Amino acid sequence: MQPLYSHPSGRHFLQIPGPTNVPDRVLRAIDHATIDHRGPEFGELGKTVLAGMKKVFKTDGDVIIYPSSGTGAWEAALVNTLSPGDKVLMAETGHFATLWKKMAERLGLQVEFQDGDWRHGADPEQIGRRLAADPGHEIKAVCVVHNETATGVVSNVPAVRKAIDAAGHPALLMVDTISSLGSLDYRHDEWGVDVTVSGSQKGMMLPPGLSFNAVSAKALKAADTARLPRSYWDWKEMLAINPRGYFPYTPATNLLYGLREALDMLFTEGLDNVFARHQRHGEATRRAVRAWGLEILCARPEEYSPALTAVMMPDGHSADALRKTVLDHFNMSLGQGLSKLSDRVFRIGHLGDFNDLTLCATLSGVEMGLKKAGVPHRAGGVQAAMDYLAETSRPCPAQAT
Amino acid sequence: MQPLYSHPSGRHFLQIPGPTNVPDRVLRAIDHATIDHRGPEFGELGKTVLAGMKKVFKTDGDVIIYPSSGTGAWEAALVNTLSPGDKVLMAETGHFATLWKKMAERLGLQVEFQDGDWRHGADPEQIGRRLAADPGHEIKAVCVVHNETATGVVSNVPAVRKAIDAAGHPALLMVDTISSLGSLDYRHDEWGVDVTVSGSQKGMMLPPGLSFNAVSAKALKAADTARLPRSYWDWKEMLAINPRGYFPYTPATNLLYGLREALDMLFTEGLDNVFARHQRHGEATRRAVRAWGLEILCARPEEYSPALTAVMMPDGHSADALRKTVLDHFNMSLGQGLSKLSDRVFRIGHLGDFNDLTLCATLSGVEMGLKKAGVPHRAGGVQAAMDYLAETSRPCPAQAT
Amino acid sequence: MQPLYSHPSGRHFLQIPGPTNVPDRVLRAIDHATIDHRGPEFGELGKTVLAGMKKVFKTDGDVIIYPSSGTGAWEAALVNTLSPGDKVLMAETGHFATLWKKMAERLGLQVEFQDGDWRHGADPEQIGRRLAADPGHEIKAVCVVHNETATGVVSNVPAVRKAIDAAGHPALLMVDTISSLGSLDYRHDEWGVDVTVSGSQKGMMLPPGLSFNAVSAKALKAADTARLPRSYWDWKEMLAINPRGYFPYTPATNLLYGLREALDMLFTEGLDNVFARHQRHGEATRRAVRAWGLEILCARPEEYSPALTAVMMPDGHSADALRKTVLDHFNMSLGQGLSKLSDRVFRIGHLGDFNDLTLCATLSGVEMGLKKAGVPHRAGGVQAAMDYLAETSRPCPAQAT
Amino acid sequence: MQPLYSHPSGRHFLQIPGPTNVPDRVLRAIDHATIDHRGPEFGELGKTVLAGMKKVFKTDGDVIIYPSSGTGAWEAALVNTLSPGDKVLMAETGHFATLWKKMAERLGLQVEFQDGDWRHGADPEQIGRRLAADPGHEIKAVCVVHNETATGVVSNVPAVRKAIDAAGHPALLMVDTISSLGSLDYRHDEWGVDVTVSGSQKGMMLPPGLSFNAVSAKALKAADTARLPRSYWDWKEMLAINPRGYFPYTPATNLLYGLREALDMLFTEGLDNVFARHQRHGEATRRAVRAWGLEILCARPEEYSPALTAVMMPDGHSADALRKTVLDHFNMSLGQGLSKLSDRVFRIGHLGDFNDLTLCATLSGVEMGLKKAGVPHRAGGVQAAMDYLAETSRPCPAQAT
Repeated sequence: MQPLYSHPSGRHFLQIPGPTNVPDRVLRAIDHATIDHRGPEFGELGKTVLAGMKKVFKTDGDVIIYPSSGTGAWEAALVNTLSPGDKVLMAETGHFATLWKKMAERLGLQVEFQDGDWRHGADPEQIGRRLAADPGHEIKAVCVVHNETATGVVSNVPAVRKAIDAAGHPALLMVDTISSLGSLDYRHDEWGVDVTVSGSQKGMMLPPGLSFNAVSAKALKAADTARLPRSYWDWKEMLAINPRGYFPYTPATNLLYGLREALDMLFTEGLDNVFARHQRHGEATRRAVRAWGLEILCARPEEYSPALTAVMMPDGHSADALRKTVLDHFNMSLGQGLSKLSDRVFRIGHLGDFNDLTLCATLSGVEMGLKKAGVPHRAGGVQAAMDYLAETSRPCPAQAT
Repeated sequence: MQPLYSHPSGRHFLQIPGPTNVPDRVLRAIDHATIDHRGPEFGELGKTVLAGMKKVFKTDGDVIIYPSSGTGAWEAALVNTLSPGDKVLMAETGHFATLWKKMAERLGLQVEFQDGDWRHGADPEQIGRRLAADPGHEIKAVCVVHNETATGVVSNVPAVRKAIDAAGHPALLMVDTISSLGSLDYRHDEWGVDVTVSGSQKGMMLPPGLSFNAVSAKALKAADTARLPRSYWDWKEMLAINPRGYFPYTPATNLLYGLREALDMLFTEGLDNVFARHQRHGEATRRAVRAWGLEILCARPEEYSPALTAVMMPDGHSADALRKTVLDHFNMSLGQGLSKLSDRVFRIGHLGDFNDLTLCATLSGVEMGLKKAGVPHRAGGVQAAMDYLAETSRPCPAQAT
Repeated sequence: MQPLYSHPSGRHFLQIPGPTNVPDRVLRAIDHATIDHRGPEFGELGKTVLAGMKKVFKTDGDVIIYPSSGTGAWEAALVNTLSPGDKVLMAETGHFATLWKKMAERLGLQVEFQDGDWRHGADPEQIGRRLAADPGHEIKAVCVVHNETATGVVSNVPAVRKAIDAAGHPALLMVDTISSLGSLDYRHDEWGVDVTVSGSQKGMMLPPGLSFNAVSAKALKAADTARLPRSYWDWKEMLAINPRGYFPYTPATNLLYGLREALDMLFTEGLDNVFARHQRHGEATRRAVRAWGLEILCARPEEYSPALTAVMMPDGHSADALRKTVLDHFNMSLGQGLSKLSDRVFRIGHLGDFNDLTLCATLSGVEMGLKKAGVPHRAGGVQAAMDYLAETSRPCPAQAT
Repeated sequence: MQPLYSHPSGRHFLQIPGPTNVPDRVLRAIDHATIDHRGPEFGELGKTVLAGMKKVFKTDGDVIIYPSSGTGAWEAALVNTLSPGDKVLMAETGHFATLWKKMAERLGLQVEFQDGDWRHGADPEQIGRRLAADPGHEIKAVCVVHNETATGVVSNVPAVRKAIDAAGHPALLMVDTISSLGSLDYRHDEWGVDVTVSGSQKGMMLPPGLSFNAVSAKALKAADTARLPRSYWDWKEMLAINPRGYFPYTPATNLLYGLREALDMLFTEGLDNVFARHQRHGEATRRAVRAWGLEILCARPEEYSPALTAVMMPDGHSADALRKTVLDHFNMSLGQGLSKLSDRVFRIGHLGDFNDLTLCATLSGVEMGLKKAGVPHRAGGVQAAMDYLAETSRPCPAQAT
């Protein structure tokens, strides 16, 4: 296969907020012969990855693994629990929340969309007020994006849960964790989430092609009466055969090899260490952005994303021109601004398989790109990040086996 | 990663009728760093694989690539073209035709299922008669499985088309080619098919995880009025962005690398050579089966599958016991009998990345397994296959570059 | 990379007696990033492979690993222990024994070469007689090839040891195990061998590029006074640093990754099982050869090689024409006849990562090739092998983890 | 396989001056099935890599490829051209020059070693003077290291050639390019070198395990009378069979796959672009070192190495402590000081498959390490490098295929 980027030497830096850099261990695991998905070895594989995903979601409930993009898991969450014309409450946190809303509408649901400025997370108080004003319980579900990949803003899921409970409302709580799972602390059971949606290509460190639902008993019960047509996404057929490690239709076997390897990596590092690592890299990135004199899109510090940072361009300067400069000169892909943020922000992914020096490289690419593209800024971003990283680094000496 | 089969030495023989043995070239192609699915290189990749798939389907129309199993492409065909309560005519050719029928019902369609004995292909005459008896055109689609993976029987798609035309009926023709595409000659345009459904893990020589729809102009028009809810599977969003090589949601990038490589392999061999190779291996396999004194499930020679051969067990003998013997002793996976054929047939896959010696190994494993498991048979199956293969082989000398 | 054989589909069968088919696990292990050969992780790798090789050689003495072909390990054995003009006694068992002899001469040693007909192993009695006739101990070393790769004949190393001891002669015993180690039982210490020579690309299941010396205390002592010039091959520099897992010059790191994996595979299977497997495949191959009515080159059953079988062509028939037919038609490489056996024998490798079905494929390729090339023979070789394999196979059921 | 460095996340930075970071394309090429080294496909491979290496060495003469480390190619150069007791003139440029000298002595040559301070290249004038003082032409060879990997100093090979010619002396000129080939401009023919020695694991971007000799007609003639014993390293046997693409003993086939890929990468980038890239990264590195206030080991700017930079530690500070800090905290391997430079310098490799952002990461790791380890320095090294890189970068836009 020919090289995928035209830069003739060295590694491409894929610093979009997903797909993330897939570790060699995971790529090599995927590069194994496909096996019989009805044979005894497959059963072991299936049980291992299903059990591992429950640990990642922090749930004792059920987890579904789909051969699909994360978008499919959005659809699965809706069609398994809702009926045509059902009302759902969604919070406009950004581009992906908006896409989920459009999907719900296309599937025949009535969506009430709480306006947002794309710089804040979902507002638990506003959600609580709306539910309190729904004594007839017409609202069947509340849908929130945990980490808005388009904005780098984290919504407070436990607070949303509390708001729902405070309103005494039976609506299901559905949360999109596509760009947070495996990067930010997330607790499906403890936080009382009914359906968690996720995907393989961000914190889970896999190529795209797998998606997930974690499902509460309440959500499962809702599936008994939900009347949206479904077949591919149907939970029940999955759950009937999953306990033995199998799937009702052909699973994406080789991606499951990768998932097994990625789970092993996450558990070896320790989920808490993984989360702390992302927090630290997020902080270092924000120090760089501030040193450059640029503005972070996320408005409130308590909502900063540890997975990515969206940076606002100075007025009159094109984010896409900057991104092209960085790609053409420094062989790094940055995330673009999406829909109404198009050309106005760029996004730095600092999630997945990542470390201090890769972050320094990433920020160097941005700083040199700012200079090269003539974007007004102060030098010193990389320096600020290095200062913080050096201050807070811990040794990780090689271990004798 | 630990070995996937417990046999300590040598290669596992995956002779189920799919997933098939993935060539090393394809596995290695998949084992490359994931790239930005919005970047310039991806656009080239996307255009290449979309154009390649059109050649494989033999269509100038549109091809859709989904990140999903083949089952998803079944659903896509239905939800894009039909409305709740629509009537579809399906032919019961075997287990997979039956699964597709169940899916249609779960999606809210009314299915008329033409009975079959699982030893014959779809009956064009019967289909024609039924359509002639539908002057009100209540039947919106005729759905046929080209190569029934459960039985090794090929349905005559052009004859079905003729029957529809002879009846002057406007129903869409939908064909499942999951286990035929890339193995048997197939002509979406010439045969007048409206939606062709396929998947990656059989003749396309990829791991499971990609699926396909080839779509006629008539089918596309049907999508304008089709009212089954759809979002993930929606053709229109795909087609809006595909011409530039992109996808509306994150595609399964690494599997697309594999697809590019597999297409290159198929075109290098030449599709006609690929089809001839499968025909020859099918014939060699059937000669072995006959020499053993066993019965081929497919009742009519003109419907024999070049991709797989389902073999009936002598009365009182368990196909699953035989399969277990072959797996435990000879490290080969054979396909099981499905639903009503359970334990009564075993299936030999001879499709995908395959050659004469691999077929000899496969048939040796079956013949030794028959002996080992105490299944009444005559020796000489491998010999019969070798006689035919040696008679019909062509030299393929190494070429100087 | 383009496909290496022009056959467009399916796997090439590499049935020369080495390099052998490298298992995917080993290839994937090699396909990992190169590490610092002076860093802490490398030390662990080095210690692991050195310890593993001692188990394979069955020695408590020293093992040296060279970045070189097996030919280099021949040279190392000689230059570390001998001085210019020293006399060595070698047994002409075939092409490789002859090459080793030529090397010794080129290095300035005096070789006494005991004639052989290339159909027998080294003659312990003759060796004993010669040593008994050397009261002045001018002969400094006796060199024997354990498994002659050119002929498929195994020499009786313990008997050679006994003959040396019976003669009360102090000559070093050097044994080439390039095509036997990891395939045939071999016991460096118990058999009293002073230098064992080996390579990576046969029973060790690696690509070529690593070679080995196992060294007795007596050989090490000989190195103190040996005056052949040496630097790259010098044992002492290796042994000074090996205990910490390092090497005096840059080792072939990635091949060592492969060696670690291959050792793990051998120990998981169990060396005794590995040896029994090769014995069984050797016997099955010989039954096929006899059924074809062809003659096995190795004259004495007690010297049959479990690793390869050399087969004599009927008079007037070309082995190379047969090999070309098999390669061009059936995509299988067989070993050629070497020097005086050129065009008169072909060699079937049945060693390394190998199993029953691969053997059946191999023998099928030979049988079809014989037919295709018009070589007089009887059909039934594959059948004879299958009969034996089926009779003697053991189940190896998949294990729950 | 388990992870090789204990850091749980992200890629290890291997910034020793070799082995260098092997590109994924090369690793994947190596990860292909081993083929018959006597078969037709191998011949094509052999011819391709031999022709490619001639282009890299810039020679129309012969190139030899050994399955060995670079150390073996040193030995090959000596044993093919010299006789016991021959006198050779060598220049003490650093640790590797000293190792080559020791090897020559161990092989029985008389070495005259021109003293050096390990901060300068070979002195052409001094060489010329010595040769002028050798009217009897007792000196048979002059040996020079082109790029001293231990010091980051480049010797002026054309000037050495001129000095030899000016003295009218017939000594052979032998040059070690192990850490320069594929990184610095080198011209075997134009510069009149007789034997060039090289290895795979630096600028050639391969794992260690291959080494090279480029050989002039004069050197080849010297081989006719050279009496050092040789067999494995013998040029003549190689050259007899190389023209058809084969080797006299088993070559390291899989590493040759990698070599073919690496050659393709070098030629695609263009050798002149490769050299310019290394120059630019060397300059950026030195600007960082100066900004830190540290001293570059190489004393003369015209001898700066574009492949690596050796940096002197402030008095009283341990280079090895710094290196351990960098490895433990930032997952980067730096080169150690060797023999008399032990613990006094560290070496930054900036050669092979490398780009601007990887250099920024590398320098960030050093700068943070200096801080962390309490080494007196000024901040701003990374900034200085970025300023230079941004100033001098060229766009390399993605190309439509």
